[in-house]
Amino acid sequence: MNYQDFFQSALDQLRDAGNYREFAELERHRGAFPTALCHNGPNDTPGDVTIWCSNDYLGMGQHPKVLAAMHNALDRTGAGAGGTRNISGTTHDHVLLEAELANLHGKEAALLFTSGYVSNLATLGTLGARIPGLTILSDALNHASMIEGIRQSRAARQIWKHNDLVDLEAKLAALPLNAPKLIAFESVYSMDGDIAPIAEICDLADRYNAMTYLDEVHAVGLYGPRGGGIAERERLMDRLTVIEGTLGKAFGVMGGYIAASAELCDFVRSFASGFIFTTAIPPAVAAGAAAAVRHLKTSIAERAEHKARVADVRAQLDAIGLPHIDNPSHIIPVMVGDPVKCKFISDTLLRDHGIYIQPINYPTVPAGTERLRITPSPVHSAADVDHLVAALESLWTQCQLARRSIAAQ
Amino acid sequence: MNYQDFFQSALDQLRDAGNYREFAELERHRGAFPTALCHNGPNDTPGDVTIWCSNDYLGMGQHPKVLAAMHNALDRTGAGAGGTRNISGTTHDHVLLEAELANLHGKEAALLFTSGYVSNLATLGTLGARIPGLTILSDALNHASMIEGIRQSRAARQIWKHNDLVDLEAKLAALPLNAPKLIAFESVYSMDGDIAPIAEICDLADRYNAMTYLDEVHAVGLYGPRGGGIAERERLMDRLTVIEGTLGKAFGVMGGYIAASAELCDFVRSFASGFIFTTAIPPAVAAGAAAAVRHLKTSIAERAEHKARVADVRAQLDAIGLPHIDNPSHIIPVMVGDPVKCKFISDTLLRDHGIYIQPINYPTVPAGTERLRITPSPVHSAADVDHLVAALESLWTQCQLARRSIAAQ
Repeated sequence: MNYQDFFQSALDQLRDAGNYREFAELERHRGAFPTALCHNGPNDTPGDVTIWCSNDYLGMGQHPKVLAAMHNALDRTGAGAGGTRNISGTTHDHVLLEAELANLHGKEAALLFTSGYVSNLATLGTLGARIPGLTILSDALNHASMIEGIRQSRAARQIWKHNDLVDLEAKLAALPLNAPKLIAFESVYSMDGDIAPIAEICDLADRYNAMTYLDEVHAVGLYGPRGGGIAERERLMDRLTVIEGTLGKAFGVMGGYIAASAELCDFVRSFASGFIFTTAIPPAVAAGAAAAVRHLKTSIAERAEHKARVADVRAQLDAIGLPHIDNPSHIIPVMVGDPVKCKFISDTLLRDHGIYIQPINYPTVPAGTERLRITPSPVHSAADVDHLVAALESLWTQCQLARRSIAAQ
Repeated sequence: MNYQDFFQSALDQLRDAGNYREFAELERHRGAFPTALCHNGPNDTPGDVTIWCSNDYLGMGQHPKVLAAMHNALDRTGAGAGGTRNISGTTHDHVLLEAELANLHGKEAALLFTSGYVSNLATLGTLGARIPGLTILSDALNHASMIEGIRQSRAARQIWKHNDLVDLEAKLAALPLNAPKLIAFESVYSMDGDIAPIAEICDLADRYNAMTYLDEVHAVGLYGPRGGGIAERERLMDRLTVIEGTLGKAFGVMGGYIAASAELCDFVRSFASGFIFTTAIPPAVAAGAAAAVRHLKTSIAERAEHKARVADVRAQLDAIGLPHIDNPSHIIPVMVGDPVKCKFISDTLLRDHGIYIQPINYPTVPAGTERLRITPSPVHSAADVDHLVAALESLWTQCQLARRSIAAQ
């Protein structure tokens, strides 16, 4: 066995299939975001680019209140937490943030994790492994972290067709009424931008005595009067057993969490390996995230501007007939449908137009649905939008890609 | 199925067994660490405590260079990374830190993860799942994150007796010479503080054509002329396939990493779900960690003071006959051997002496080996040591716990 040859050959296969990922090396300029210096630009010449694919959806990673809270926490307490939550790593900032998040979602408690990935992995993993006889009913398009958590729990698993209530009900009805069940799904699905029928899923959960687990990572901060997500907007938060969210997207920092009953949070806190055996997030990260959550509970300006900017981009894409998935969220997937062209467009946008949009290819999305996933934000100006759309228009012509019939819109 | 009752009953069982964890809520005072304000002190009265159980082993979480680097990065670039490493989340600070870590361990490349937990989980999980026919030979006392990674990979697993070369060799010899194998182990084991025979394990790896995976999370920054860990101290870094480390202990911030060949790092980068589908650590965290790594490459003062302080505590414990595990590392496990007494001593230290040491009970350590795990650091003063030892002495008398025969030492 030659290990190096094995690794090399696996990487060569990825390259041959067009699925080898190259990372853009970016350096944001505070205050100038979405502009950033790209260190590994075309011909390895560093140059400024406009980022159009960030999950810092509202630009909160640049917000003065967030930065002030982080500076302040560094000055007050230092850098790291210095331990696991159990062994000297629970700081006052963690406790305050958990209270803020429980309040955001109208739940008794919240529990922090080092990332949204780990919150899904650890919570679903622990519930699945520890509740005897639990069946987890998982939406077919759930995120990798949920799939991993469910897989690792070794609980019985039923995958229901994406957002399909008929299929979900059939699978629920086939299980004994008194058997423990958990329906795991997302509110906003990040690659297509579609939204789950949460109320109807909760109705089914009630009817079949199931718990519900809702991943709102692409919705918290963005939807609802206080940024509590789609479930808040639709006044459904009290009907969900667990709401899971992230501090690394609209809240602009890092970390993940669940909000739920005191008992459920305490259960996960007490049994989840991925929670127990890991160093807590730095107090400054917790303080920055808490500042973002607090700000977005009362300020609606960011959400209004975000919505307006998303509508602007959609309208301009429609005006020139560029195909994008028509969805009710803030995510604009512009469809290319070919991995080589998708990468070519992305490369050309960077080289000739100073626009950075990472191509989304298989396995993140199904082959044949390769796309540019555009995420407008309040920090993009009207001129940024014009520049983006003009660049896409010229590339669509150059690549001879299909357009929608403009008359048909 | 009543879910709330189920959670409540599981928590009650933990409480009845004495294994329910209560977290101390701490607020460090920058510059005054190891002193911190304990918000949930005895009778819920906040009060200052001296922390004696932190994994911020060198106090780098308070180091001016680390804090300056974090402040600077916040001012330069903002709060979060804003995306996964592939989708706009690779910043210049991540790339610089990975180069710093590759250099630290004398390897071609390094790869960052959101935590040490995730680095073990993702790397062992990916190697185990992706290398056909791989057998992972795992030390019996490996950390939970390694165990989880191996379990989740579903690779064949052989558990060898802790630090036992005879048992390891027997298990290696029983496998076909040409079959792929990975020996996974730690350098410093964090609960007993003992150290693995790394050279001899590498000899066996060579003889039986196995890769080696060494977790150095309790050693990086602390051992070796540049803080590269036990493998650096023993000039063995080039013999290890993978060295795994953390930025959340001696380096004082947060995050985990592996250092290895360019191909191996690229392989894990390309296939590990726990690396791909998660938001990158904030650039300020990466910058702070890089400053700590850089500083400890040239400054030996922290390591010298650390060693001296550990020796002081050991000598004073010996002088009064308090039983602690005699090991060659910086971790001082003072053995109590009873969960109720262990918690009582910890509570009393906090209430009557302003000393915070979390009790370590089952399942973190085997029942009957309950302990106080003391981690002296350069920021503890001679007066802190005197105060600690005097408090322990009075409690040992009060609890009528066994002492070593002082004459026998």
